[in-house]
Amino acid sequence: MNILLCSAGRRVKLVRYFKEELGKIGGKIIAIDCDPSAPALHFADCFEVVPRITDPTYLEQIKYLCKKYEINAVLSLIDPELSLLAEAKDALEKEQIKIIVSNKDVVEICFDKHRTYKFLLQHQLPAIPTYLNLNEIEAAIYNNILQFPLILKPRMGSASIGIAIIHSMAELQALWKDDGSLIVQPFMEGLEYGVDCYVDLINFQPVNIFSKKKIRMRAGETDKSVAISDDSLFLLIDKLVKVLGPIGPIDIDCFKTKKGFVISEINPRFGGGYPHAHEAGQNFVRNLIRNLEGISNKTEIGNYSEGSTMIKFDDVILLNSHSFKKVKV
Amino acid sequence: MNILLCSAGRRVKLVRYFKEELGKIGGKIIAIDCDPSAPALHFADCFEVVPRITDPTYLEQIKYLCKKYEINAVLSLIDPELSLLAEAKDALEKEQIKIIVSNKDVVEICFDKHRTYKFLLQHQLPAIPTYLNLNEIEAAIYNNILQFPLILKPRMGSASIGIAIIHSMAELQALWKDDGSLIVQPFMEGLEYGVDCYVDLINFQPVNIFSKKKIRMRAGETDKSVAISDDSLFLLIDKLVKVLGPIGPIDIDCFKTKKGFVISEINPRFGGGYPHAHEAGQNFVRNLIRNLEGISNKTEIGNYSEGSTMIKFDDVILLNSHSFKKVKV
Repeated sequence: MNILLCSAGRRVKLVRYFKEELGKIGGKIIAIDCDPSAPALHFADCFEVVPRITDPTYLEQIKYLCKKYEINAVLSLIDPELSLLAEAKDALEKEQIKIIVSNKDVVEICFDKHRTYKFLLQHQLPAIPTYLNLNEIEAAIYNNILQFPLILKPRMGSASIGIAIIHSMAELQALWKDDGSLIVQPFMEGLEYGVDCYVDLINFQPVNIFSKKKIRMRAGETDKSVAISDDSLFLLIDKLVKVLGPIGPIDIDCFKTKKGFVISEINPRFGGGYPHAHEAGQNFVRNLIRNLEGISNKTEIGNYSEGSTMIKFDDVILLNSHSFKKVKV
Repeated sequence: MNILLCSAGRRVKLVRYFKEELGKIGGKIIAIDCDPSAPALHFADCFEVVPRITDPTYLEQIKYLCKKYEINAVLSLIDPELSLLAEAKDALEKEQIKIIVSNKDVVEICFDKHRTYKFLLQHQLPAIPTYLNLNEIEAAIYNNILQFPLILKPRMGSASIGIAIIHSMAELQALWKDDGSLIVQPFMEGLEYGVDCYVDLINFQPVNIFSKKKIRMRAGETDKSVAISDDSLFLLIDKLVKVLGPIGPIDIDCFKTKKGFVISEINPRFGGGYPHAHEAGQNFVRNLIRNLEGISNKTEIGNYSEGSTMIKFDDVILLNSHSFKKVKV
């Protein structure tokens, strides 16, 4: 069994997990990225440098690579590509290319923070009030429904790119753009939690739910986290999965407030903090491979020890001009 | 031979290099840090959690640990600790504790960006104009000696902490503090280079000089660099070392401008980008150990291939409550 990992970027650990699990059954992980110096490429069984996902020939390249490497399934690790793959899913599956991505509706709800908010509200799930309109924001502040500091974020997008903390109306007006590209949320005080969930591709159940408290952030990513087991959080995620209907690996950000957990963001793909779940024994990669072999997985929610701490550190590799160009087959 | 590495922090690769080289001669690397979740601790032969360097008992703890682990030499990886160790060097060496740090004068010139500038100027070495006084900055702008954008930096300090790009006099006045803690420099346009130099502890020659072009930065650190060999840069560094007189590993930042190389910062310690030099065969760790054995090293400046590219990536480890507390002996 061979798997194609798109936009592999810096996700070296994930590539290593796939290589390890696929290696056990004689399979290969093939990683692609538009940047030949994306570290993860150089840890896959084979890699190829491809055009950017915005290139009109991108999907053709995916098809070509799927034939070349006899690919059984395709996954992407970045949000903008999820929409692209979700859109092309039916067409690609007609050519026997299995895409591990949630339906287009699910992907679009998750990618758009205002749609995420409306979806959560509609299903009585705890959400962070999310404003898209300056008049509404001003009215909410005037009526004391909303207080400074606020958070200004791009409506689409992930990580911490383009986020600003807003302390006054003057600051808000200076940074606001009236083109629907920005949202405003109250600044959340509580502890931040990251949840890694695996929704079985056969029985559609959230068979794994792993949660961790974020202790330290660096460059928009979790640098240190502690595994936490909390039944109220597991119930909330279970309910979310049942109403939203994503498949495969999902990454969910939450805040723990005085009133309980609130959902902040949903990314229907492997999250950057997945290595904590994996190292703690929640092996989504093995479960995904099992699903691709036609076997469904048993539910093992919360089947891990609380208190394990994950810390990140830097490693390096040296590439010469040869290793940049060569496809490692 | 046992070596104590202070403020080990995130420098996992460096700890691994020490462990490898010391392992060959039956020696051990002992890492210390005030944060039990500092990743580098968990890759040393032994580690200890110590108070902050500002704690009045800090030096006593170093002395105690040197006896406990039969330490032959002590190194620190962070700038504020270099001054502390340089200050205490004589007293510690009376107790047979060898400190690998440059003299106090050298350390203080390097730690203070305005003193660095004055030192370079005094020795006719190319420097970035560095202003400490708002009146002088305003006069230089008025006389068109200095143009926006400018860079505002803490006078002391390293990495990119507290750096701001200044586009107007209003911005400058808003951010300026008149307490001598800030400096202003012109915004440098050229390519940034990092130089790793090893000054032999016995013959005082810069026996290794490795230089790399910085291609991509992330969280204030070099994420991607390319090895470059440039005789004019080697000559400049050789001259700098001869007039400044640092010892051991030194990290120097430069810009390549139309008029040639300009020195921007000198850190008389292992730099964060040292792994590139090491992986390219410039083994300062081995040379340091040789020096401690009483053997001087031969000069091998520029003895590496140009064009190798170093890329960083994240790795993770999981710690349980046990691994936090236990000293790994």
